[in-house]
Amino acid sequence: MSTHNVGIAGLGVVGGGVASILEANREAIKRRTGADIVVTAAAEKDAQRAAEVKLSHGRVVADASALLADDLVHTVVEVIGGTGFAREFVLKAIAAGKNVVTANKALLAAHWAEIMNAARARGVSIGFEASTAGGIPVIRTLREAYVGDNLSRIVGILNGTSNYILSRMTLEKSAFADALADAQAKGYAEADPALDVSGADSAHKIAILARLAFGEDFPIEDVYCEGISSVEQLDVSYALDLGYRVKLLAVAKRRDESVELRVHPCLVKENHPLAHVDGPFNSVFIEGQYVGDTMLYGQGAGRWPSASAVVADLIDVATGRAKTVALRRGEGRLSVRPMRDVEARYYIRFQAVDRPGVLAKISGVLGANDISIASAIQRESRTGRSVPVVILTYPAREGAVQQALAEIATLDVITGKSVLLREEE
Amino acid sequence: MSTHNVGIAGLGVVGGGVASILEANREAIKRRTGADIVVTAAAEKDAQRAAEVKLSHGRVVADASALLADDLVHTVVEVIGGTGFAREFVLKAIAAGKNVVTANKALLAAHWAEIMNAARARGVSIGFEASTAGGIPVIRTLREAYVGDNLSRIVGILNGTSNYILSRMTLEKSAFADALADAQAKGYAEADPALDVSGADSAHKIAILARLAFGEDFPIEDVYCEGISSVEQLDVSYALDLGYRVKLLAVAKRRDESVELRVHPCLVKENHPLAHVDGPFNSVFIEGQYVGDTMLYGQGAGRWPSASAVVADLIDVATGRAKTVALRRGEGRLSVRPMRDVEARYYIRFQAVDRPGVLAKISGVLGANDISIASAIQRESRTGRSVPVVILTYPAREGAVQQALAEIATLDVITGKSVLLREEE
Repeated sequence: MSTHNVGIAGLGVVGGGVASILEANREAIKRRTGADIVVTAAAEKDAQRAAEVKLSHGRVVADASALLADDLVHTVVEVIGGTGFAREFVLKAIAAGKNVVTANKALLAAHWAEIMNAARARGVSIGFEASTAGGIPVIRTLREAYVGDNLSRIVGILNGTSNYILSRMTLEKSAFADALADAQAKGYAEADPALDVSGADSAHKIAILARLAFGEDFPIEDVYCEGISSVEQLDVSYALDLGYRVKLLAVAKRRDESVELRVHPCLVKENHPLAHVDGPFNSVFIEGQYVGDTMLYGQGAGRWPSASAVVADLIDVATGRAKTVALRRGEGRLSVRPMRDVEARYYIRFQAVDRPGVLAKISGVLGANDISIASAIQRESRTGRSVPVVILTYPAREGAVQQALAEIATLDVITGKSVLLREEE
Repeated sequence: MSTHNVGIAGLGVVGGGVASILEANREAIKRRTGADIVVTAAAEKDAQRAAEVKLSHGRVVADASALLADDLVHTVVEVIGGTGFAREFVLKAIAAGKNVVTANKALLAAHWAEIMNAARARGVSIGFEASTAGGIPVIRTLREAYVGDNLSRIVGILNGTSNYILSRMTLEKSAFADALADAQAKGYAEADPALDVSGADSAHKIAILARLAFGEDFPIEDVYCEGISSVEQLDVSYALDLGYRVKLLAVAKRRDESVELRVHPCLVKENHPLAHVDGPFNSVFIEGQYVGDTMLYGQGAGRWPSASAVVADLIDVATGRAKTVALRRGEGRLSVRPMRDVEARYYIRFQAVDRPGVLAKISGVLGANDISIASAIQRESRTGRSVPVVILTYPAREGAVQQALAEIATLDVITGKSVLLREEE
């Protein structure tokens, strides 16, 4: 039996893990799948990292380009990251007739069509299970298990850092800043947490899932994106009192010929399976016409879960299975629904003076904008000055809600910025 | 492009659903996967069922054997059920060089090696995603996504009927008999619910999952099996008070060179993701060395979820992907761990006279058998005669616990049969 030779570009957290699993499990993988996968080369600029990885049948070089010139290498693993050198590397690998397995969500989010078209034209395979939700097999579930279904909705908790922070705020009553500091101390959040807490990382991932589910190359710029840094402990507490958990959700929802694509903090009812996905875990809820409601749960990041997803992709490539996975061709008629036309129930917290008639004024403006109130909470002020007024609406249109909020902001009874959270059912 | 021709044996709940999805989504499946799947024939003895299914490019016959003689048919779908005619049908189909997609867990549980070996020898594919947990893609997750990992544990809620009943008992405080009647009224339970509530259905399914996960043809007889019909409302309530939910779990757990295989009602901590899988839903929790903790959730039965799993298998076969799925070859050294050697924490409820010294007597016997008590509840009797004494143990060996229970049953303070539930962590 001939071996399937792999070159790993980048021996960081994930790349080093991939090398290690393939070394440790080579015989087991061969016995179970028939594929004999060997790391024949790896590239890593950092000399210390490079020295830490021992390849029993390969060499470690400094320059990733060497992998492209290496005729022995059938498949490259791209775990370099970023969209500059990584893009060039992947396109050159494809041009050289090599299969590519990548964990790079930013790259796929930004250059999807370019990479997929190049791979199709050259007849090589692209594996990217590790790009979204780590060890959760969501890419293959969408491409294979549910490819014959008509999917209507994907709702994901796709960023472990944000979920860890919101879980702390919910379960330990932490403030956002403390929960973030704790996430950094535990290694769940980077020193610069912007990509995670801004929602951008989740936006990359939901773009990838939406393209698979709905067969259209939605531009990443069209994903509405709002992060968690403005979520306050007060709102997490109100949500809990009302029977909800606050989660950063990434939503792709088909309605007729348009698709909603949005990332923002959401209220999730306590009895929904996503409500109990806590800590650094990820989860993807998928709704299909035939399969009904399903959910996948697991570790969305980290060395071993991500590396295990790369290894699964390598086995697909080595056994020839990846070749048979056709990417959906665009159905050519789905557009991204503008955010103003999205409908949801809303949680809105106003900060207002503690005086009779405030609720009447606010609800007057809401009513004039066709927004009905489902419930309202106004508690007595302890300071005697400013009180939170919390309102849950019936389903309303985002455009109308934004209009009403702008009008309410000008009322003289309003003392601070209002907070808006959408509910996802 | 040539078509991939399918013959469906059995047009009942699932078979009729498969025909219907393939008719409705033929163009979509072709566009997305490149496979043009056509139902060219179907077999159904029941004339009324046969009349309900309209095939635009096929005929419905009464006798399933006609599908085997039909040279046009590339793949047969076996949704006849049972282990008699269905076994013969599947083996003959394989012998005739046809691929087989089946939803028949009882058949696979009983005749695994015979069917898999025949298929391997003849070079045809066997798809069986629908046999276990319906629309949840657990078969492909074990065979493909996690085939390169070293799995340590699978814990499943695999029987929707039992889970519905236990959920009613938990959330509505129903008695077992009322919850069962309700499940029957709602169509979740058969008129004869024995296969479901006895745990036998779950045993079939965990045997299939264990064979995939651990690569060994464990005999179905070696699965320890205990159903839910002796679960009482009282124990569900005590469990709730103690922070647990009672679930019928199917467990396959590797420890060194042996595997525990068992189905029985279990205590699951409230913060475990399986605790919140309610109603007729199924869920499979999978633990691997690299991937960590993962869980899949969805509808485990019913026309559409099961049919969607059959359709996914047909797409695998039609695209050639199924050909590349090697079944694990046995690692040749894993045995089934005898139940007496299983270790767990135990919930035990004794029924005893309301008299000082009872707890001392019981704990004396437990202690003599190396069983330590983690907590105990003994409430005052309202009737003045017999009281429940509930004990949670530290991890103990099943053999020791059974020995202690036998000894305690002979104590004069014991007034009724004791109840034992294991905790799964």
